[in-house]
Amino acid sequence: MGRTSHAKEKLIEGTRELLHLRGYRDVGVNELCERAGVKKGSFYYFFDSKKDLSLAAVNALWEDYRNALEAIFTAEKPHLARLEDFLLAGYRDQCRMQTEYGRLPGCPFGNLALEMGGQDETLRLRLSKIFETVERYLERELRLGIEAGEIEPIDAGAVARALLAYQEGCFLSARTRNDPDLLKSLLQQGIRLVVTDAPRS
Amino acid sequence: MGRTSHAKEKLIEGTRELLHLRGYRDVGVNELCERAGVKKGSFYYFFDSKKDLSLAAVNALWEDYRNALEAIFTAEKPHLARLEDFLLAGYRDQCRMQTEYGRLPGCPFGNLALEMGGQDETLRLRLSKIFETVERYLERELRLGIEAGEIEPIDAGAVARALLAYQEGCFLSARTRNDPDLLKSLLQQGIRLVVTDAPRS
Repeated sequence: MGRTSHAKEKLIEGTRELLHLRGYRDVGVNELCERAGVKKGSFYYFFDSKKDLSLAAVNALWEDYRNALEAIFTAEKPHLARLEDFLLAGYRDQCRMQTEYGRLPGCPFGNLALEMGGQDETLRLRLSKIFETVERYLERELRLGIEAGEIEPIDAGAVARALLAYQEGCFLSARTRNDPDLLKSLLQQGIRLVVTDAPRS
Repeated sequence: MGRTSHAKEKLIEGTRELLHLRGYRDVGVNELCERAGVKKGSFYYFFDSKKDLSLAAVNALWEDYRNALEAIFTAEKPHLARLEDFLLAGYRDQCRMQTEYGRLPGCPFGNLALEMGGQDETLRLRLSKIFETVERYLERELRLGIEAGEIEPIDAGAVARALLAYQEGCFLSARTRNDPDLLKSLLQQGIRLVVTDAPRS
């Protein structure tokens, strides 16, 4: 394959998957090239380093996730139902990946943050920015719910941060146990961080 | 230093710290020996591999944490206050480590679970077992609180799993942002997974 933008896309696509399933350190440039069917020369034509390609893969993952967030938070539903959808987002994806790869991969951003956040400031800051943006979606939705009288008055910023932390913790817990039923049960409980009268499964 | 049990302890001690701060893949046997001031021959006298030593370090970390849990859950306090103490456990340690090392290291078990849970079944199963044991402490405390009428009836097992997932998510979120104030604010909100009338900070 030549140095076409198609090669660049294939490199990003393969890196997304390997990064998500196996993490940053476990995968080298050779394997990334092999997976993409791209020569090493092409790799270095498009990217300076594994980190450079990994950041592109993180950005591609984020673009898809942001589209998913846009869909969730513009759906014709009450605000609380949208927040429940946010919590459960990714559950079906995780089940599909478990069927395909034999295990729950968890959240690619959370995984990478814990693996590399202590060693690479560029990656940590990018992931930190992604988390902040997700929190802004949640905070806006909470404010709209409060304004609409669907959600009782709360500190929307603090609860937004708690919701994201909880969702990340659910992925971590379920990935460690490799248990999709645990993931679903945990995610469903998160709404109690927002409402006081949610069912206590 | 000879092949004394002191050398073994020093290896475990240094590995605990490096594993917590930098993770599994970032640290090699040479560095672990250097940190402990132990020769490589001594390393292989006591341990078969880096993984073997890492498991010993995880067990040492777990022993300390289990002692901390015992102290929390036998304190002369109401059950709900003990659960709040559980949530906040580690916050002071995190602040101390941030002062000492310049960043929040997060939870060593959660970090390792996300870094290695997809690649190493022995480590994943050990960490999974640790999480289950913590959940049993929480479930027992919730049941006692319900029996004592301090906590309204809930599914103690499900809420125990949610509390642990939430605490892990708080560490993940705060480590990614390297922000101890965020950690404290997040941990304080976790009690809302247990009680419906907790203050909504």
